[in-house]
Amino acid sequence: MSEVANLGLGLVGCGTVGTGVVRILQSSPDLLTRQAGKRLTLRRIVVRDPGKVRDTDLSAWPVSTDLTSIISDPDIHAVIHLVGGIEPARSGIISLLQAGKDVITANKALLYSHGEELFSLAKSLGRTICFEAAVAGGIPIISAVNTALTANEIVSIEGILNGTSNFILSRMLDRRQTYEEVLQEAQARGYAEADPAMDVDGTDAAQKLVILTRLAFGTSVSLDSIVRQGIQHIELLDLIVAAELGYRIKLLAASRLSQGGLEVSVQPTLVRADRSVALTSGAANFVAIEGNAVGVLKLSGAGAGQLPTASAVLADVVDYATGRAALTFAAMLRMQDRTPIALQPQEELTRRQYLRFTVADQPHVLADIADILGRNGISISSVRQDETEDRGDDTGVARLVIMTHRTTEGRLRAADAEIAELRSLRGPRIRMPISD
Amino acid sequence: MSEVANLGLGLVGCGTVGTGVVRILQSSPDLLTRQAGKRLTLRRIVVRDPGKVRDTDLSAWPVSTDLTSIISDPDIHAVIHLVGGIEPARSGIISLLQAGKDVITANKALLYSHGEELFSLAKSLGRTICFEAAVAGGIPIISAVNTALTANEIVSIEGILNGTSNFILSRMLDRRQTYEEVLQEAQARGYAEADPAMDVDGTDAAQKLVILTRLAFGTSVSLDSIVRQGIQHIELLDLIVAAELGYRIKLLAASRLSQGGLEVSVQPTLVRADRSVALTSGAANFVAIEGNAVGVLKLSGAGAGQLPTASAVLADVVDYATGRAALTFAAMLRMQDRTPIALQPQEELTRRQYLRFTVADQPHVLADIADILGRNGISISSVRQDETEDRGDDTGVARLVIMTHRTTEGRLRAADAEIAELRSLRGPRIRMPISD
Repeated sequence: MSEVANLGLGLVGCGTVGTGVVRILQSSPDLLTRQAGKRLTLRRIVVRDPGKVRDTDLSAWPVSTDLTSIISDPDIHAVIHLVGGIEPARSGIISLLQAGKDVITANKALLYSHGEELFSLAKSLGRTICFEAAVAGGIPIISAVNTALTANEIVSIEGILNGTSNFILSRMLDRRQTYEEVLQEAQARGYAEADPAMDVDGTDAAQKLVILTRLAFGTSVSLDSIVRQGIQHIELLDLIVAAELGYRIKLLAASRLSQGGLEVSVQPTLVRADRSVALTSGAANFVAIEGNAVGVLKLSGAGAGQLPTASAVLADVVDYATGRAALTFAAMLRMQDRTPIALQPQEELTRRQYLRFTVADQPHVLADIADILGRNGISISSVRQDETEDRGDDTGVARLVIMTHRTTEGRLRAADAEIAELRSLRGPRIRMPISD
Repeated sequence: MSEVANLGLGLVGCGTVGTGVVRILQSSPDLLTRQAGKRLTLRRIVVRDPGKVRDTDLSAWPVSTDLTSIISDPDIHAVIHLVGGIEPARSGIISLLQAGKDVITANKALLYSHGEELFSLAKSLGRTICFEAAVAGGIPIISAVNTALTANEIVSIEGILNGTSNFILSRMLDRRQTYEEVLQEAQARGYAEADPAMDVDGTDAAQKLVILTRLAFGTSVSLDSIVRQGIQHIELLDLIVAAELGYRIKLLAASRLSQGGLEVSVQPTLVRADRSVALTSGAANFVAIEGNAVGVLKLSGAGAGQLPTASAVLADVVDYATGRAALTFAAMLRMQDRTPIALQPQEELTRRQYLRFTVADQPHVLADIADILGRNGISISSVRQDETEDRGDDTGVARLVIMTHRTTEGRLRAADAEIAELRSLRGPRIRMPISD
């Protein structure tokens, strides 16, 4: 290659992913220059705590706590912004855009809650925001929706978008361990946060799904408007029973066009063991996207981790350096202007269901539950009650698993409200849709 | 959207995929305009036989047999060229490039044999060639290599790149049918050509692999320089034995960096039944690409078919219309200028192997084969000989399956040459690597 121009970059935030970005910039400069057609030059780093010990030496760069060091550097064209949470990330990105910098971010929570604000601001300023790394880490799902499936009306997107919960569910079954045991191990190994609530209650997956849903269908949804359940109440028993029936339980995030509108849900779901989504084990992510022309396209890979996420961030940087990113962002904004597809009312979501109850080991409990289901128009396809230890009194508990035929979320909620009142109930009521 | 410019397109060739392109252009004009930022206007169609009955009405367009009708139309900027084979496709594309037209092609055989010539010509003329549809149909593998994994040194690409052979292998096992029975059905259903040689002997997959290898590693290889075997000699017995051992047999195309250089091979391969590549059934394609940062990224979907392939063609058209395609093509050309990675000598390829012999049901046959393997330094890990019908004479045949420990292609070839001389041999010698 003859003369190459320089592309000046800033980096805000140097935690796990930021350090990964620095490592790749240091280890593969020639590759990146060739790909980008420009020399990618990291000029400044802004972090909260410059004194923090990092596993990569940052002494080659001016490191500051002051975002204005980047804002006021006229040779920085794009900023890799790897700060989590809403504030100060939001204000920082707004300042950068207003200063004429383009932004590469991996902040899913921010794009979920303020994506429209930021995209709209970038549009009005003629700036570009790249965010491949915000959803499913190293899997190029944003790019698939924005560039590979452009000739398709999207029919559905579904997948495993949270690695922590997938790790927990996979490990519980493989090792026959309880939720608590596996969670502790995941925390010890750094797969789960000290406070894992966002991962295990479905929030993280739902935020990613909302971003994908906006891209694929033009529909903006809030977490409150979608069916969302986490994995916290799943017991080893559920995983084992599901496995015996030929299923795996996966925290499945899905947006799907149906006759009633767009179905959006994040729920632990029974999927057939021989489907590739069921093979997604450990902390991996999986996305299946269906287009009306291409059919179902499946992608799987590392949904998190230092280098996979940094790989996605730097793919954005290269895309930006070549000029592609601005064109893709403009196309994405055009697509956001579509008439959005309306959300299907939650009550109308129709699926087969797996129901599991922990009940007193007493006569008539099954009859009570079956009666409630029947009166709510829910048809039972199979029942399984495990043998329990007979303590000679009424203190024993039994676990009752009921598989239903296709039924609506509305009927299930009505039945569940009645079942919740039963005095024979001895633990949480678990229900999960079955995907065939 | 306010005013949109027009992008004039020509179409050369209107067979299955071309008809699919016309169908999508007709059915989704608004979507395509929004994605492309321009109105995609098909201006002229050139076909060999304008009188041919097609399942889509072409009467809205001037249809001619004369490529100059497109060449001389100044309002046609890009040409969707869907003619198979080498000539006249090569000459036609050259004429179009020279006339200042950019080209979108799905012609894998042409890109295999003349890709470098065409890319070099396009470069010198400042033109762009798009070819997402040439490899793995609807799976955006070209885009993955060219844009999603730009921050990665590619470590390996492997996958199922030929749908016909995958359909045959899947169906043989599922239905317990012979190769000939399934091939006939595949031909009847249009999955296999009247002459299926290129599909079943590995040529088609190898040509696609060569294209991917050039993109991913900068290395140009010819079919003769790679290890290549087809599926023609695989018997139902092999599939059943492999299944009993926990494997599926897949025609696996693989390029992989190893210490000795780049290993490139297309071979029926035993893959563990619980790997996602093993789940790829029917006419689907699968590609796993490993980058040093992102890890293993897996993609699967429709590798052929009218609409999936047309979806990829139109993704290229949209990419072209936005301006992205020219930038990606320029980056690809920069990457082709790398120092290519040298091919590992075929003899050094080292894998475990599945060997199957059809031998006379006589004493000492196993000892003879084991002796030859041993003298060639090939270590046996397991042996299985099926019971045969005892005809009371020496006319019976037995099928002998030997699994080896890791050994080199060179040793296997030497041993095979000796075994081929054994007078007790009664049929073809099958050998397949085992991928763990």
